[in-house]
Amino acid sequence: MFSIAVAQSGGPTAAINSSLCGVFSGAQRYDEIDKIYGSENGIEGIINDRLIDLKQVIKTQHDKDLLMKTPSTILGSCRFKLGDSEKDEENYIKITETFKRRNIKAFFYIGGNDSMDTVLKLDRYFKAKGIDIKVVGVPKTIDNDLPETDHTPGFGSAAKYVATSIQEIIRDCRVYSIPSVTIVEIMGRDAGWLAASSCVLRANGEPAPHMIYLPEREFSEDKFLADIKNAMKRYKAVVVAVSEGISCGAGKSELTDAFGHRYLSGVGKYLENIVRDEIGCKVRSIELNVMQRCGSHIASLTDLAEAERIGAAAVAEALERNASGVMMCFHRISNKPYRAEIITCDIEKAANKAKYFPAEWINDEGNNVTIDALNYFLPLIQGEPEIEFENGIPVHFRLNQ
Amino acid sequence: MFSIAVAQSGGPTAAINSSLCGVFSGAQRYDEIDKIYGSENGIEGIINDRLIDLKQVIKTQHDKDLLMKTPSTILGSCRFKLGDSEKDEENYIKITETFKRRNIKAFFYIGGNDSMDTVLKLDRYFKAKGIDIKVVGVPKTIDNDLPETDHTPGFGSAAKYVATSIQEIIRDCRVYSIPSVTIVEIMGRDAGWLAASSCVLRANGEPAPHMIYLPEREFSEDKFLADIKNAMKRYKAVVVAVSEGISCGAGKSELTDAFGHRYLSGVGKYLENIVRDEIGCKVRSIELNVMQRCGSHIASLTDLAEAERIGAAAVAEALERNASGVMMCFHRISNKPYRAEIITCDIEKAANKAKYFPAEWINDEGNNVTIDALNYFLPLIQGEPEIEFENGIPVHFRLNQ
Repeated sequence: MFSIAVAQSGGPTAAINSSLCGVFSGAQRYDEIDKIYGSENGIEGIINDRLIDLKQVIKTQHDKDLLMKTPSTILGSCRFKLGDSEKDEENYIKITETFKRRNIKAFFYIGGNDSMDTVLKLDRYFKAKGIDIKVVGVPKTIDNDLPETDHTPGFGSAAKYVATSIQEIIRDCRVYSIPSVTIVEIMGRDAGWLAASSCVLRANGEPAPHMIYLPEREFSEDKFLADIKNAMKRYKAVVVAVSEGISCGAGKSELTDAFGHRYLSGVGKYLENIVRDEIGCKVRSIELNVMQRCGSHIASLTDLAEAERIGAAAVAEALERNASGVMMCFHRISNKPYRAEIITCDIEKAANKAKYFPAEWINDEGNNVTIDALNYFLPLIQGEPEIEFENGIPVHFRLNQ
Repeated sequence: MFSIAVAQSGGPTAAINSSLCGVFSGAQRYDEIDKIYGSENGIEGIINDRLIDLKQVIKTQHDKDLLMKTPSTILGSCRFKLGDSEKDEENYIKITETFKRRNIKAFFYIGGNDSMDTVLKLDRYFKAKGIDIKVVGVPKTIDNDLPETDHTPGFGSAAKYVATSIQEIIRDCRVYSIPSVTIVEIMGRDAGWLAASSCVLRANGEPAPHMIYLPEREFSEDKFLADIKNAMKRYKAVVVAVSEGISCGAGKSELTDAFGHRYLSGVGKYLENIVRDEIGCKVRSIELNVMQRCGSHIASLTDLAEAERIGAAAVAEALERNASGVMMCFHRISNKPYRAEIITCDIEKAANKAKYFPAEWINDEGNNVTIDALNYFLPLIQGEPEIEFENGIPVHFRLNQ
């Protein structure tokens, strides 16, 4: 008998608890696994021995069902970066002590690029010291920017939220008889996957968003204004999707109010202002903000199911194939019908690296994406989980009721 | 045989098309009604004779089902204010001509305070001129600020969207181990109903939002900061709901960036900044923006059903009781079980007037609302419409496919 531990790290998603469910359910299949520990606030909980016996909190199938549909991380998260073991071994020693004290033989870390760095470092350390503890990375990020995997759990739900919200914004924009421009700012500092995914509305015959701007292409304010003017010839209500990470004056300039307070302007607000100044039409910007990463009430069932499946597969990988120092990955077999298998990659290929939106999926003008992108995105947003409501509000799993 | 006309005005809601369905279905019950006209862009469509034969576009039960769940106004909206008939009779003459040309004997205007002013003026004009055209107002606004009616269609869905989103934001806020403050800015320039409605989360044992600030109470930045500091003693992640209409430095001060662009800061951004400056903790503000008025994918079924019912009742009122110059109203009979009947009020009592959030439902400290408010709000957010999805995205009714 031995125990395992699981932790969640990085920014929240609608599917990260589904991966936790997957690890939990996967581990429950093995009689030799004693305790399934959840670490509070990512690796910090391992360092400080703040562990929760998950069997004591996820007791029923109903608990698991609720947890699957609860956004963000019930165990808490962290932005902790593990130093090099040669320079700063203290945390490694603490981690090893926690694992040994609790008889933990495998550790599953659900997270993004930074978390995969932790997986890499821990695996290297344990191997160097001859310590038999498996470390496996389970990918998650709404940014979809992890290498080696076709896509990341959390992304499909974020994409579904973004598409659903933009479609509603489109309805909202079209009501008045005067021309207008609406700029929707979407998360993605370095990679534009999520903004690009707003193209899925085309599958239902919706021409908006009329332009999509990604950080992968150089951004020109002049071209942007020309695009807007051009679109206004064809459409009364122009709707534009913009990645927060495009390079423009936003973020570079600070705003100051009469009280001396300083603000950092976002991309949407910045572009709103240049449209107002240069074109002079009705214009508004909308930031989808954190709702796009925690909007579980409109999550993708495909995403949640895959997140669970990849979590469970991680346990099997460590226990049955003795894998360690790997990240679990999806490998897409086909779009129609959608089929994806779970594989692994060496953690070195995923840690600290980013996967950008492919240049060949951006149109020549650099203001939209291609049909290949649409075909890539569509399978990931399919299906809706059945949401449980109480008093008219979705029910969330809560650790401390 | 005669015809009727219906128009939609003011800001979009998730339920305004449901009221249109109600008028349409209500009118279909009368054999003596020939055409059911929808006017494009509110009263502007009547003035300029831009009318749509709704029977030609709402052809099937499926069309109606989709329209019920499509946000915003399919007929378009307007912010047109009809002048006094003594000073500016031209538009009244045009309206009368359209009605006579089309043999329209009853006009139903779905809208808020301003639209009720149009109902009032038209009714007065027709009565003064001895023209037999009935004019009936059908209330709608997410602000819930129309007098005489217990609540307004559109509000319940907005409240359900706000509560659902804030609950997800709460999950998102709680993941990190450091203390934080999150300020959610909610629509409501003069009346705080929608921000107040975020208290419904309490029904499910959720203590957040920890404070709720409404325009009905004087706002003190010092008290606000003291409240935040106090809440931070009890909660790691403090979440605050703020009406966009509270009186603070926001909106009064303009921001300027290095490029000379001017910005108007919203309440949330403004308060975020004073928390950062004065308390120095992690702080963020979130504007729910137009999504709260068009978020039909998480609409309240009670709201949509009532919106349809009151639309149909308006037709019956005009045809069977010869009513004109009235607004349709809800009169609440009981909270548990929830029961509301439809009554009418003289349009003079509703036009250009606002109903504010009751002072007695605000706590003594002025930073939250009472249990009576909770009991008032809860019935309005109950139930969920069955959403039809295509390609993973909700299907909307579109006038011009």
